[in-house]
Amino acid sequence: MRVIASIAAMQRLALKRREEGQAIAFVPTMGFLHEGHLSLMARARKACSARGLLVVSVYVNPTQFGPKEDFAKYPRAPARDAALCRKAGVDILFTPSDGEMYAADFSMRVAEERLSKSMEGASRPTHFQGVAVVVAKLFNIVLPDAAVFGAKDFQQAAIIRRMVRDLNFPIEIIVAPIFREADGLAMSSRNKYLSAEERLQAPILFVALQTAKNAVAKKPLPRAQLRQKIERLIASQPAACVDYVEFFDPQTLEPAAKVGPGAQMALAVRIGKTRLIDNAEL
Amino acid sequence: MRVIASIAAMQRLALKRREEGQAIAFVPTMGFLHEGHLSLMARARKACSARGLLVVSVYVNPTQFGPKEDFAKYPRAPARDAALCRKAGVDILFTPSDGEMYAADFSMRVAEERLSKSMEGASRPTHFQGVAVVVAKLFNIVLPDAAVFGAKDFQQAAIIRRMVRDLNFPIEIIVAPIFREADGLAMSSRNKYLSAEERLQAPILFVALQTAKNAVAKKPLPRAQLRQKIERLIASQPAACVDYVEFFDPQTLEPAAKVGPGAQMALAVRIGKTRLIDNAEL
Repeated sequence: MRVIASIAAMQRLALKRREEGQAIAFVPTMGFLHEGHLSLMARARKACSARGLLVVSVYVNPTQFGPKEDFAKYPRAPARDAALCRKAGVDILFTPSDGEMYAADFSMRVAEERLSKSMEGASRPTHFQGVAVVVAKLFNIVLPDAAVFGAKDFQQAAIIRRMVRDLNFPIEIIVAPIFREADGLAMSSRNKYLSAEERLQAPILFVALQTAKNAVAKKPLPRAQLRQKIERLIASQPAACVDYVEFFDPQTLEPAAKVGPGAQMALAVRIGKTRLIDNAEL
Repeated sequence: MRVIASIAAMQRLALKRREEGQAIAFVPTMGFLHEGHLSLMARARKACSARGLLVVSVYVNPTQFGPKEDFAKYPRAPARDAALCRKAGVDILFTPSDGEMYAADFSMRVAEERLSKSMEGASRPTHFQGVAVVVAKLFNIVLPDAAVFGAKDFQQAAIIRRMVRDLNFPIEIIVAPIFREADGLAMSSRNKYLSAEERLQAPILFVALQTAKNAVAKKPLPRAQLRQKIERLIASQPAACVDYVEFFDPQTLEPAAKVGPGAQMALAVRIGKTRLIDNAEL
């Protein structure tokens, strides 16, 4: 495995490999890797085959954090990340620096303006702009044929797909399933923030998804009614505080009036000070 | 020469040619081609060599016209454009349709937010957003190694360079010199709008550039003083009405306090109903 920090070196290598006809598969991450990330890498390897180039980036992108969010304390473990990537068969670990990614007079905006208004976009107003700009940059630097994103960030994946469609990036977007702990908690680097007590309450997000799924299996329910039911359930955990619970069309992200099987549910819940998200098709 | 209208076909071909190691040079245009465009094509051919692929796009991009601008009546001559391209040795003429370029639910914004505020950006508030988004799309579809833009649109070229730098497009941007009529009028598809009487007055833009150049050759002048002098000169032509006259740093586009040799001058002038632009290094 090669570790590359320079944007120019990474792009040069990618251009050369493409010229040689080698497929490139890419997994962009913010590091502090867990089994969820490893499952994305396995999916990416499948996409580019054993002879392709598997590139993983580790970059905690400042522009996707709000001014009061956890950029500074976001967990970082570069040595462990490198060891995990090596073990996972990654060919290139790309670790750019903030200074190279964002010049002092950086002045480009890349933004999705429909799908990004609700849910995460409503709670974190500049988040998806930061995501769009960094992913556009990484796509142009790594020049992948395929890129793999995790389904935990459902809205992010929808926005990336839209960006690829509307800006014509020649890249296949693959969304890999959520990887869960035994008790249903979705893997996330932020799970590290949870105290032992909070960790016991955190599976309430998964329980909420299962409960909603069962509730609408027989007959569709009005959105407000289902939301109330789910919010009450979450409130049963003393450390939990709902940010949003939403039910929507998985393509357009438009809220569903009646929620039935096939609708998508997503939620964000604070467990103590830690904000967790999860989602599922009902 | 092949004419391709389908985005997917153009991108497939570009990917294949890159895989084969063939260089691609690209000239994006809005058609109604003139000798200025032909000089860009010659420059692009030089960039990709005889064995490279020279791609010219003709696309009158609706998103870069304001609601009261001349999108509907912008001159179009597809058959003549194709003949000129063939004669110029173009390999691929790419002519996408509005429907393919912009889906009904298109929702991406690409915008430069510093260099685009003054001059053309001030007079045409949504213009450069339209330019940025269409150029980003065309870059991802045509996948060129080099792209050639005309120096007449000085601010546009600066914004494209910034977009390429900030979003890391692996593309060399070449800015080719302004091509002028014998009397100094910069070539433009919009010159076609001019009446015979207006055509005689239109070289006042070039005269203004020359006059400013001579005025500051001996010693720098305060910006306001130089602007007043130039605006008076332009007012000597009865059909002429100044939109802006600006003096600025060619890198940052920041207005110069004192204008001397090396400063850039740009101006927009209406001749009757036709808005013309021009610029020069002083």
